Amino acid sequence: MIARVAVNGYGVIGKRVADAVLLQPDMELMGIADVATDWRIKAVADRLPVYASTEESATAMRAANLQPRGSLDELLAGSDIVIDTTPKHVAAGNLERYRSAGVKVVFQGGESHSTTGHSFVAQANYASALGREMTRVVSCNTTSIVRVLGAFDDSGLLARARGVLIRRATDPWESHLGGIMNTMVPEPTIPSHQGPDAQTILPGLDLVTIAAKGAHTQTHNHFWTLQLTRAASREEVVDALRVAPRIAFIRMSDGLVALNSTLELMRDLGRPRGDMWEVAVWEDLITVQGDEAFLTYQVYNEAIVVPETIDAIRALLRLAPDAHTSMAITDSTLGIRKEFFASNSPL
Amino acid sequence: MIARVAVNGYGVIGKRVADAVLLQPDMELMGIADVATDWRIKAVADRLPVYASTEESATAMRAANLQPRGSLDELLAGSDIVIDTTPKHVAAGNLERYRSAGVKVVFQGGESHSTTGHSFVAQANYASALGREMTRVVSCNTTSIVRVLGAFDDSGLLARARGVLIRRATDPWESHLGGIMNTMVPEPTIPSHQGPDAQTILPGLDLVTIAAKGAHTQTHNHFWTLQLTRAASREEVVDALRVAPRIAFIRMSDGLVALNSTLELMRDLGRPRGDMWEVAVWEDLITVQGDEAFLTYQVYNEAIVVPETIDAIRALLRLAPDAHTSMAITDSTLGIRKEFFASNSPL
Amino acid sequence: MIARVAVNGYGVIGKRVADAVLLQPDMELMGIADVATDWRIKAVADRLPVYASTEESATAMRAANLQPRGSLDELLAGSDIVIDTTPKHVAAGNLERYRSAGVKVVFQGGESHSTTGHSFVAQANYASALGREMTRVVSCNTTSIVRVLGAFDDSGLLARARGVLIRRATDPWESHLGGIMNTMVPEPTIPSHQGPDAQTILPGLDLVTIAAKGAHTQTHNHFWTLQLTRAASREEVVDALRVAPRIAFIRMSDGLVALNSTLELMRDLGRPRGDMWEVAVWEDLITVQGDEAFLTYQVYNEAIVVPETIDAIRALLRLAPDAHTSMAITDSTLGIRKEFFASNSPL
Amino acid sequence: MIARVAVNGYGVIGKRVADAVLLQPDMELMGIADVATDWRIKAVADRLPVYASTEESATAMRAANLQPRGSLDELLAGSDIVIDTTPKHVAAGNLERYRSAGVKVVFQGGESHSTTGHSFVAQANYASALGREMTRVVSCNTTSIVRVLGAFDDSGLLARARGVLIRRATDPWESHLGGIMNTMVPEPTIPSHQGPDAQTILPGLDLVTIAAKGAHTQTHNHFWTLQLTRAASREEVVDALRVAPRIAFIRMSDGLVALNSTLELMRDLGRPRGDMWEVAVWEDLITVQGDEAFLTYQVYNEAIVVPETIDAIRALLRLAPDAHTSMAITDSTLGIRKEFFASNSPL
Repeated sequence: MIARVAVNGYGVIGKRVADAVLLQPDMELMGIADVATDWRIKAVADRLPVYASTEESATAMRAANLQPRGSLDELLAGSDIVIDTTPKHVAAGNLERYRSAGVKVVFQGGESHSTTGHSFVAQANYASALGREMTRVVSCNTTSIVRVLGAFDDSGLLARARGVLIRRATDPWESHLGGIMNTMVPEPTIPSHQGPDAQTILPGLDLVTIAAKGAHTQTHNHFWTLQLTRAASREEVVDALRVAPRIAFIRMSDGLVALNSTLELMRDLGRPRGDMWEVAVWEDLITVQGDEAFLTYQVYNEAIVVPETIDAIRALLRLAPDAHTSMAITDSTLGIRKEFFASNSPL
Repeated sequence: MIARVAVNGYGVIGKRVADAVLLQPDMELMGIADVATDWRIKAVADRLPVYASTEESATAMRAANLQPRGSLDELLAGSDIVIDTTPKHVAAGNLERYRSAGVKVVFQGGESHSTTGHSFVAQANYASALGREMTRVVSCNTTSIVRVLGAFDDSGLLARARGVLIRRATDPWESHLGGIMNTMVPEPTIPSHQGPDAQTILPGLDLVTIAAKGAHTQTHNHFWTLQLTRAASREEVVDALRVAPRIAFIRMSDGLVALNSTLELMRDLGRPRGDMWEVAVWEDLITVQGDEAFLTYQVYNEAIVVPETIDAIRALLRLAPDAHTSMAITDSTLGIRKEFFASNSPL
Repeated sequence: MIARVAVNGYGVIGKRVADAVLLQPDMELMGIADVATDWRIKAVADRLPVYASTEESATAMRAANLQPRGSLDELLAGSDIVIDTTPKHVAAGNLERYRSAGVKVVFQGGESHSTTGHSFVAQANYASALGREMTRVVSCNTTSIVRVLGAFDDSGLLARARGVLIRRATDPWESHLGGIMNTMVPEPTIPSHQGPDAQTILPGLDLVTIAAKGAHTQTHNHFWTLQLTRAASREEVVDALRVAPRIAFIRMSDGLVALNSTLELMRDLGRPRGDMWEVAVWEDLITVQGDEAFLTYQVYNEAIVVPETIDAIRALLRLAPDAHTSMAITDSTLGIRKEFFASNSPL
Repeated sequence: MIARVAVNGYGVIGKRVADAVLLQPDMELMGIADVATDWRIKAVADRLPVYASTEESATAMRAANLQPRGSLDELLAGSDIVIDTTPKHVAAGNLERYRSAGVKVVFQGGESHSTTGHSFVAQANYASALGREMTRVVSCNTTSIVRVLGAFDDSGLLARARGVLIRRATDPWESHLGGIMNTMVPEPTIPSHQGPDAQTILPGLDLVTIAAKGAHTQTHNHFWTLQLTRAASREEVVDALRVAPRIAFIRMSDGLVALNSTLELMRDLGRPRGDMWEVAVWEDLITVQGDEAFLTYQVYNEAIVVPETIDAIRALLRLAPDAHTSMAITDSTLGIRKEFFASNSPL
């Protein structure tokens, strides 16, 4: 079966999902739908089938010299599944429309768990999404937490996790609007919502997160204190991450000393849009003291949920029987790595 | 006795110390010494006695239309104590010169504990500095840690502290040089040095810090997870801070929602240079869960060590017999507060 | 006569105007009115008479532990003049209320010239405002343009001016909202509106401006190419500025090499909030080639219109007969200078 | 002839030139040489032949697990031409080494015109570089100026140009070092050096530039006032740019309203590293008033000189007889455009 995939909402996540779908051997991109009529759509109108999400936007698109192929409903009619990457307050309202069209749905982390009854991170709970009508790929922050803490949880090492998440303030494309300047903005409540959000997938985790926005536009930076179940060696802790999927090591000793260093590396690796789908953990910052571990990693918020979304499509449509099979295809087509270059010299 | 005080190094800290000395009833500012010859000195040459730290700088000052009153040695000869606020790699080298001049010395946190054999935070260890030849006022980050964790320690509540310190990248006056842009820079080791530094004053503290630079120029932002000695109520935790000196509460509910909000408040309060000498703890972010507490505060790195430096002068010269007496004078002359305005409405 | 002054809108400009009114020998601050109930008002509630601009805000203030003295109407009833420093889309709507109260009005540059029929920069047209019912102090950018180009115009040297204005993106107090990050945002039209705005005061000026927002929060930076009426010496051009009021020279050769250097100088000079009321022209960047001059200056947008507003009060109420008399009082009470320090060494 | 090309200095420009050489049908990349041993080299060590620029770096590379193919001299021995993209103070010192190796040389804009006796922008003076031993591709700013002003010059419309150049402060990869924060930094002299630099290629241009650094990391933003030789229509001015090579139009009306919008567009177009080789002129900001024109454009400093460097290789080695032929190959292989998307709606 070649899954027919629609993407509704061509923004930061939607455009990356669309490109990723194009790379999958078992998927076909039927079209993207949006309400925008400016450069964001014009830039791709010659290579992607564009649909109008609303009637008004169809009119506006034609006025802007764009020729939409049809309405969102027409797009849905020819699709098996829709990826809803519309803004936070729009998505849930689309659910009835999707149900009427008889398509399965993948929502994103802006939606609440209760909308779908299921939240998704491939390596953690692919199996429970198999054949479901819909799921929700959790947010960038939560995805990274589930990957990393899940790895420690799997290794039996994790008793408790306390994290500080310094989020990027806004995405580059909209950084002329609504950014923050020369300041930091703490979240107005502690704990922040990412802890409970991760528990929708790993309910047994004992974790608390404190979050704040930093004055930069790309990638989140997480800092963790982990209470281990027992005193462990540094190598045990490092190994727990080494064997986990979609986590890659970076090293201060390789000159990767700041968020911008990693971003330039992604550009140098020739990645589309400079994307990084892996959680980049600073291996040489991993510190173990008795039964505690400390670590720092970087989350490329614009792209990290893209492989999860691809896997979610496979799970809902039963395109692959298990996480391992699906993730292998996704990781191979995108070029996901465990090490960003061969000549890394582990400490 | 009116202590005759010299300030060597008229930079971010030096200029604030000089202004604070001018406000003290038991101190006289004999002069400031520096090597700079530009606006930094010109701006104050008509109101402060300026000395040249080196022979070369004396010549350069005269060439720049400045008329230094004399050399650093001449300044020291007429002083009882010198506050060394020169840059990190300069200060320790001045020690012999100070000894020859027979003056007592207060160094700053850029110097190592071993240079002086004593590190200082007024509320923690004023007594042990009484009459000493010299001490070291610890850095802005460490001062804030000793104030806050010391408060919990005093209350018997603190078992263990794990902190993430997001530091400002550079000071405003030099932010056209050596800043960071649109990134974060984690410290290259975990734990960062602030933990051991705080232990030079509170050796019993069990604390680990992780540090990084954020892309802003004013104030550090600390995030803490505290393991308490027992389950405690939120009110107990809040009270531990409420009774501690040089800690002031701010509140999200008052609209103080970001680092820049507090900075504007300081300007509105008419403070010199917009300085904040207190650690500003977000009261409504203090969260207690069982035997853990979580909190966030803001440290105005340019000014927080100024009151400590004034108290250190008193301790070394025995101008005041105990911390309480000295701090009362300092706090009153500077205008240090526990609440920044009367109409605060505690939660 | 002691003018009874009300300030409606206690924001960036309003709070500075209120403080400046307090310094004037011929004015009394009757109160400030606002709708805010947070730290912005709480910080000054113990030192300024606070009124509620609306009925809703009166209720909200009381709920927030603030005790407003009364309504805006009550404030106006006891005042001779009101300074409207409310936000752009609010101010014009207040006009009827002010008229009913029988008070004179000074609006700010966010309002259109047509609202008042008169725009004001003290040194340019004080006389024409004498006794009027109302006027509009033009914006920070326009005020600086009228001061500088007016100086050249007065000297008979100016034929044509072409300027590029790089504006700060947002003010520090609100830089956690609506800022821009790591980008520049050109104004969507050329010419920008500042040229015509300056012509409301100096109608004969031949000027065109291009504007953009830069990724910084404090002070605008203007770059000008001036076509002179004839070939002139550099000294003639410099002198035209030297004799003009409210323009001060700064110099790269004094180490004042960037916007942040000047800002730190203002803090070092002990100015309230670090304000700079003067246009700071880089003297050593003034370049003359034949019949063209090039120059760069810095405009402290938060404060530059404060002295103009004070003078506008005097003009409307005929407190001073001419610009010279009014400006002398204003400049003396605020501490406005032509040189920021004595030891400047002109090139 | 397939030109054998060496790249010495694998930094911002070097890595882009190397990738561009790989795309040329008439060139072969023999290798890249550098002294770095960190991620910058490790990231490409498996796909590019790496050489060590110095003996020390050869040792260091081996210690870092990199296996350099040989020395710079060995690389040069097998090459026809070297592109020197080493840092500013290193490049000129390499000249003798290149001469000894008998290779031709392309320097970059950090070097002075006098080093090579020839400066290069393809569309302006390709012919004069034919067969020369060496040339210098001018800097990013100067390249953009020559393209744009050259276009007006060719059209006979340009009498005089006065420009304000707001430069990015530092490149993203090194933005954790040496950046500027929340400020602007004017160049310490007017005129800035870009005017005379452009005159090394277009000696007849009457232009003056004023430059400053802005607080952003990507792309320069130029603002121009052009004195035309006569009153002209807006269409004539627009047409002069429309027919010129390597200038592309962007439009506010397409939502491209800030520097970051264009950068995101480049990412969406799938360009390597998000590069933009064209000067992006805001078409709908082009304004003509009588005999004056005003315009604004954006210069992607990391990439704009890459096509010029490729053309310079062809000129020195006589791979193509004229600019038109060479530029056609370069533009086609890189994907240089006049419009970034088809559905542009000209005003």
